[in-house]
Amino acid sequence: MSSFAAADDLRLREVHAPQSEVAHFGPDQPLRMDAGVDLAPFTIAYQTYGTLNAAKSNAVLICHALTGDQHVANVHPVTGKPGWWEIMVGPGRPIDTDRYFVICSNVLGGCMGTTGPASINPATGRPWGLDLPVVTIRDMVRAQAMLIDRLGIDQLFCVAGGSMGGMQVLQWAASYPERVFSALPIAAAARHSSQNIAFHEVGRQAVMADPEWRAGRYFDHGVRPLKGLAVARMAAHITYLSDEALQRKFGRKLQNRAAPTFSFDADFQIESYLRHQGSSFVERFDANSYLYVTRAMDYFDIAEDYGSLAKAFKGTKTRFCVVSFTSDWLFPTSESRAVVHALNAGGAPVSFVEVETDKGHDAFLLDEPDLFAAMRGFLDSAARARGLMGAR
Amino acid sequence: MSSFAAADDLRLREVHAPQSEVAHFGPDQPLRMDAGVDLAPFTIAYQTYGTLNAAKSNAVLICHALTGDQHVANVHPVTGKPGWWEIMVGPGRPIDTDRYFVICSNVLGGCMGTTGPASINPATGRPWGLDLPVVTIRDMVRAQAMLIDRLGIDQLFCVAGGSMGGMQVLQWAASYPERVFSALPIAAAARHSSQNIAFHEVGRQAVMADPEWRAGRYFDHGVRPLKGLAVARMAAHITYLSDEALQRKFGRKLQNRAAPTFSFDADFQIESYLRHQGSSFVERFDANSYLYVTRAMDYFDIAEDYGSLAKAFKGTKTRFCVVSFTSDWLFPTSESRAVVHALNAGGAPVSFVEVETDKGHDAFLLDEPDLFAAMRGFLDSAARARGLMGAR
Repeated sequence: MSSFAAADDLRLREVHAPQSEVAHFGPDQPLRMDAGVDLAPFTIAYQTYGTLNAAKSNAVLICHALTGDQHVANVHPVTGKPGWWEIMVGPGRPIDTDRYFVICSNVLGGCMGTTGPASINPATGRPWGLDLPVVTIRDMVRAQAMLIDRLGIDQLFCVAGGSMGGMQVLQWAASYPERVFSALPIAAAARHSSQNIAFHEVGRQAVMADPEWRAGRYFDHGVRPLKGLAVARMAAHITYLSDEALQRKFGRKLQNRAAPTFSFDADFQIESYLRHQGSSFVERFDANSYLYVTRAMDYFDIAEDYGSLAKAFKGTKTRFCVVSFTSDWLFPTSESRAVVHALNAGGAPVSFVEVETDKGHDAFLLDEPDLFAAMRGFLDSAARARGLMGAR
Repeated sequence: MSSFAAADDLRLREVHAPQSEVAHFGPDQPLRMDAGVDLAPFTIAYQTYGTLNAAKSNAVLICHALTGDQHVANVHPVTGKPGWWEIMVGPGRPIDTDRYFVICSNVLGGCMGTTGPASINPATGRPWGLDLPVVTIRDMVRAQAMLIDRLGIDQLFCVAGGSMGGMQVLQWAASYPERVFSALPIAAAARHSSQNIAFHEVGRQAVMADPEWRAGRYFDHGVRPLKGLAVARMAAHITYLSDEALQRKFGRKLQNRAAPTFSFDADFQIESYLRHQGSSFVERFDANSYLYVTRAMDYFDIAEDYGSLAKAFKGTKTRFCVVSFTSDWLFPTSESRAVVHALNAGGAPVSFVEVETDKGHDAFLLDEPDLFAAMRGFLDSAARARGLMGAR
């Protein structure tokens, strides 16, 4: 068996029978979706780290980004790589698993065990494909709230996440203010901008242009739209990095050669790097899931849902720490500032940290000392207020 | 015949037997290319406007951008649309055809009559495809210089162009300083940045991922990689506009509907707009040409070729006007400023105009009063110095 085929077996195992813990919700517990339909049954796959205290007051929910998953701080079951936020989550880390009970669930529409387009539609016995109703950020959060209920947790000590994870944080604070003691949206926005929708649309068109996509039913034909999905990932990946970081890291450096080849080979390191991003992504991700999660972000607009951003957060007692990065052009600081202004207008306790970095949007995943210091400071202060400082 | 098939016939006619004037260069006049081979025979298709004066001192060469062509100020023979710079070129316009003799040639590697990958390779009687040597900006300029020789013009009054056109302007000034009285590079750079190479690579991968590309020999199979080329265009088009302009023009507005459909249709106006950009582009452009012209830009790096930017322009007597746009993130002002610094270091006469606009890179094609005023002022002053003010 080729290594790709082996990885694909692992990937499919995680869709249908994940290594994670799984919460099953039966026909008696449907998820009411924004698309106007009830989803039942459905499942949520999740990981936990640390121990829930007796008062159930130390739970931190981490919300993952677009192509992330629940494997925050453990080896990934498909790629074998470390968890995507090990730098942030663990004993003695800013999100300290000696103090907090950390939960992360795969989002609705994802492909790591939570119900998504690759999951089996019980009505047909075949994968959902595009028959799965379109998912919104609010649907993802509703599903998470049902998981938190299942875990017997009334109020989360903190909900934290970057990018699409930050959108979920904001939705949590708007939908369930009394269940969120503190909120940490990083590199996020309260709506998806026109430019962001445009980039997502390019990615979807790249997937759908691949003839192996087969109108979303590639699994019925034993194929996958790998090339289209790789192009989508390449385009998206550029938006996660800053111009400065690309120039510093790759510049115009050639890849293992002294002179240009005058060809369409990957002469430049940046080309080789992007191709690698595309090809490694398709080993772990489902193409239809990519359509669903990008669409969820496109539809996100809290101000539209509530009449205004200020109304969405009016009267909230949740403590907020909003974080942005100076070189993030996908979710620029202006978007975070709009959230902060709305929170200020509503009298909410909010601190705002703009981290100076050239690392772009992906800075939330990287070793950024100012980000770590800000999160540690915010969480320690919130923990004192919540009486958690002796819990360690 | 479908309208698409009809447009395709027009497109192929322009490749092989264009409506433009054509200069043929035979085996005795090869083009020595940077790839190390001699190209012969080859052809250059071009348009002219206005009248060359007796002294042959009033010629303005316009260099077109990536997917532009020689149809600057006449109806396009394939699309039927007005010329791409009619707003700038014509009687009484900043580039005044009552005063100047304006020349624009299709670039080497293009698909509107100049030799490119869709042209017939005389050795085989079939289109070149990827057998055409990879083209550089310097090759494009060498070919243009041969055309200017053919027209009997010793010195150009001005070489002007935006984006890839501006790269050609800079290359003209570096390669043939004595032949360029004045130079007007707009929204350009003296090298292609890592981020720009990255976006081009995504576009090329989108084309090459389309199975109808057939390793570049789609014409042998009577097909075209239309979907891949459309995706490439969509991705590129986003980079030509600013975040602000997209937000102002489209925002999150829905397309002919009151509420989202919870589907993958083009719910948002920006999606519909992008899809249109993709589908209209493929009617007029050749997929392999897209690979060649993007590659030419990627390889462009004047400082690398000459040792430094200052050396490239050392001792030049050419008068420069360098123009950038505040919201252009593809060729940001910093790139223009680097050119200006190098020209200053070499003691060259240079003026620098940063136009305040939210229209992004494409501002050079649009009705920008400050751009028009700057160009008119610069050209009038240069015309006085060249003794052309009475020529009208």
